[in-house]
Amino acid sequence: MNLFADIPRDLPEELVETLLQADHLRVERIVSHGHASPEGFWYEQEQHEWVVVLRGAARLRFEDGALEMQPGDCENIPAYRRHRVEWTTPQEPTVWLAVHYAREDEQRTMRENE
Amino acid sequence: MNLFADIPRDLPEELVETLLQADHLRVERIVSHGHASPEGFWYEQEQHEWVVVLRGAARLRFEDGALEMQPGDCENIPAYRRHRVEWTTPQEPTVWLAVHYAREDEQRTMRENE
Repeated sequence: MNLFADIPRDLPEELVETLLQADHLRVERIVSHGHASPEGFWYEQEQHEWVVVLRGAARLRFEDGALEMQPGDCENIPAYRRHRVEWTTPQEPTVWLAVHYAREDEQRTMRENE
Repeated sequence: MNLFADIPRDLPEELVETLLQADHLRVERIVSHGHASPEGFWYEQEQHEWVVVLRGAARLRFEDGALEMQPGDCENIPAYRRHRVEWTTPQEPTVWLAVHYAREDEQRTMRENE
């Protein structure tokens, strides 16, 4: 599997594929091409989401501001933090990797193995 | 945080940084620059690892073969599957994203939200 392969030329809707699924974890590839969240729509997810833009460009909107994202930019979005995809570039596909993971009340600190 | 930023010019050892840590989950950025696993050393990890090469080039060695990795190539390495990094290109830094996650006996299938 290559994250930059098999990107359809025509993308009427965002393409979301599950790459990995396990307990409390789901890794997705998301391909946007000029897509944005519907007007007035906000994500308000029960799981945390760690997201990175690998290609393209995007702008996330939070209630308290916006975040411009270029390739390599990553952001952790805690559960229930309202957000929307305000813009993705129409010039090329924007490839995201999203890691959805368990809510905070199910988390604990792991000690690093040295 | 940008995955392609803050890469030291001089890398005497692989650079491993934890980007995200939660219960049963650790996301790391790993930067290699010509590094390989020590001769005769094999990783044999208690956790699964999903790994993707974002820049550079690498070759993973398993007991039953090798895997050449270019940017975008990803691979799931089940817990206890012996592997080593046989080669990374000396020409530029190789940037990996590694998702370490819980062992199979702690997994269950999650039903996708439609």
